[in-house]
Amino acid sequence: MPHPLPNSPSTLLVLLRWLLLLIPLAFVVGSLNALFLYLLDYASHTRADNPYLLYFLPLAGLVVVFIYRRFGKNSESGNNLIIDEIHQPGAGIPARMAPLVLISTVVTHLFGGSAGREGTAVQIGGACSAAYGKLFKLSGRDYQILLSAGVAAGFSALFSTPLAATIFAIEVLAVGRIRFDSVIPALFAAILADLVCSAWGTPHTQYKIDFLEHVMLFEHVVHVDLIMLGKVLIAAVAFGITGYLFGETVFVLKDIFKHVFKNPYLIAVIGGLIVIGIVSLIGNQDYIGLGVNSYREGGVSIISAFNEGGAEWYSWMLKLLLTAITLAAGFKGGEVTPLFFIGATLGNTLAWIMGAPVDLFAAIGFIAVFAAATNTPLACTIMGVELFGSDHLLYFAVACFVAYYFSGHTGIYSAQRVAVPKS
Amino acid sequence: MPHPLPNSPSTLLVLLRWLLLLIPLAFVVGSLNALFLYLLDYASHTRADNPYLLYFLPLAGLVVVFIYRRFGKNSESGNNLIIDEIHQPGAGIPARMAPLVLISTVVTHLFGGSAGREGTAVQIGGACSAAYGKLFKLSGRDYQILLSAGVAAGFSALFSTPLAATIFAIEVLAVGRIRFDSVIPALFAAILADLVCSAWGTPHTQYKIDFLEHVMLFEHVVHVDLIMLGKVLIAAVAFGITGYLFGETVFVLKDIFKHVFKNPYLIAVIGGLIVIGIVSLIGNQDYIGLGVNSYREGGVSIISAFNEGGAEWYSWMLKLLLTAITLAAGFKGGEVTPLFFIGATLGNTLAWIMGAPVDLFAAIGFIAVFAAATNTPLACTIMGVELFGSDHLLYFAVACFVAYYFSGHTGIYSAQRVAVPKS
Repeated sequence: MPHPLPNSPSTLLVLLRWLLLLIPLAFVVGSLNALFLYLLDYASHTRADNPYLLYFLPLAGLVVVFIYRRFGKNSESGNNLIIDEIHQPGAGIPARMAPLVLISTVVTHLFGGSAGREGTAVQIGGACSAAYGKLFKLSGRDYQILLSAGVAAGFSALFSTPLAATIFAIEVLAVGRIRFDSVIPALFAAILADLVCSAWGTPHTQYKIDFLEHVMLFEHVVHVDLIMLGKVLIAAVAFGITGYLFGETVFVLKDIFKHVFKNPYLIAVIGGLIVIGIVSLIGNQDYIGLGVNSYREGGVSIISAFNEGGAEWYSWMLKLLLTAITLAAGFKGGEVTPLFFIGATLGNTLAWIMGAPVDLFAAIGFIAVFAAATNTPLACTIMGVELFGSDHLLYFAVACFVAYYFSGHTGIYSAQRVAVPKS
Repeated sequence: MPHPLPNSPSTLLVLLRWLLLLIPLAFVVGSLNALFLYLLDYASHTRADNPYLLYFLPLAGLVVVFIYRRFGKNSESGNNLIIDEIHQPGAGIPARMAPLVLISTVVTHLFGGSAGREGTAVQIGGACSAAYGKLFKLSGRDYQILLSAGVAAGFSALFSTPLAATIFAIEVLAVGRIRFDSVIPALFAAILADLVCSAWGTPHTQYKIDFLEHVMLFEHVVHVDLIMLGKVLIAAVAFGITGYLFGETVFVLKDIFKHVFKNPYLIAVIGGLIVIGIVSLIGNQDYIGLGVNSYREGGVSIISAFNEGGAEWYSWMLKLLLTAITLAAGFKGGEVTPLFFIGATLGNTLAWIMGAPVDLFAAIGFIAVFAAATNTPLACTIMGVELFGSDHLLYFAVACFVAYYFSGHTGIYSAQRVAVPKS
């Protein structure tokens, strides 16, 4: 092993090179995500003001399928293409992936698909960094690091959680293991992209846990309440199985759609019609779109799930079903924000059943179902700290790792490798 | 890959088995650490009240060397033996390691050696879990997981940072990579051991960063100040090189002592005499012992380093030198608390040079020099959150990972493997 002192100057040069290389990339990814968030907000409000837009969802599905089939090249593979390319560069990520996913996600949300947005942010980051790498003729390890940095930048700008984004970008590649060799470039890209996106004035949702405990044991202050820890454990098992169920439901529905209807245009139309049918049965539009806010008094949303009575006991199932149908039908956006919704509303219900603080359990569900479905428990623990503060760090960690442990080896990204089996 | 739903009951059984298995272990490790911290506090105060005790340091060295040579078996290898045993069970960890390291660490501190305490806590955890594993006839992977849990429990009870302890226990095994397969048992052991140690009424030092920034860019709130980020970067390079220097100094001094004096008793006496000589030249006892508090008005300590003027520009060098001599001479305890001292005082000085907030830079140095010397940047980032809160999370992460990047591949634990080279 070389000693670092004689190597320090070259180590410093490598660091400075990455720093300079990443500034323009972070600026572009951060700005595109600011634009994306602005358009998404506009689409969500427009749909809320004009509920009839939902009836055009099948038509919107045709448009999304058309633009991907006509212009997409291999963009359709989305996040999986980027994960594969980081593992083994070769297939190439087309630059057009960025505008395609941006437009089709906005279309999905404008017409009431139930979808997320992290897929879009990750693909904007991945496509921009791939194009940027081509420009500077990066290859091999450098190209892989650049892609990881692009993913971190996109995720970071979207949720304004730079460290969680960094860990996510390296943790999502393989189950059960993380490697540190691209952390520093990814962290810089994530911090800068978030800075750029925020400086554009993009608002990010603020969450808050009011519950604060001061636990004593034999008259001495301790970090956790054992009863509460037990409740978190039970909830975490439920979150883990739910994360698994989500991934399986999407896969199974995709399979069924493909075998029964075959034609992708037909699948999009049928998927759109099923969503319209379910929403008509429900009688409100709480379970479509992003679900961060509800646009009606007393509606169910991620935000409402942090308050007592802010979710029905079946809310998580409806969101799971509608999102799985939307994504299996070919609409775009991603899974993460719906996973937040599913976790927060399930957490709300479990807190009610077990007599636990609703806001804490909504927060735990928010991160733990995501951790389970994507196999990224460490990123989600850190996301908990970045969104909700460090008071409940230990409950966050227990919930994310236990949920991860119960979610099997598949997850929602089929390109993810299994490095270290869970048991 | 098996689907988890049919597996959930057996997954649950595995989890419950670990939980039950770890409760008694965590109780023992937490209680022994409470005893250790009590004795350590007693020894530190006694030495502060009776400064002449320092003159018996050479004699204390003879005692420490004697008990290890007479009773130690292979205990002398300390943390490295535990790391080796987790990688490849075989050599066996003798149960006597726990009392031996406890007694010799207290002796080291009572007579004014400059040393830490995490080695002791880790070895108490490792030795107890090895004995416990023998009792239940655990072998193979189960035995390795149990050892990791023991290390996490010891570290956690000592510093009252359960999540950092968990990550430390799995991150310290290899440079550049972590595997998740023992996280859950380690996390439970860490949470419970900390609970037990705290419930015994063991006080843990409270640190606080008053500096709080509200950064605006183009009238919008953002997470980091770019100027501050630049200063953190520069400081992190210094912290990384310092962490490397510490490890190298200990190794080189050990080599010199061995080649020049050969006899371990002679080495301990000479080492003790050198410490007495340096302390006489300094004229105060700030740089021996743990260094968490100073026992005189205006003295330098870890706590004082969080205030302006709380450290001299050369404080970090003195502590580095005295600790390296103490440990190379065969005294016991560990390196981490001295690394906190070195980092916090160097951070204090760098803040003064660069015009940065002293408390923030003391905190960053505290965790980053430790991250560099032990190659555990993630554990140290999380320790930052557990000790200082989450306001400065991004600076913590940048500092720990950049410092880690500049510290070479050796570190203070020679048994640590290199899994993924830094560059």
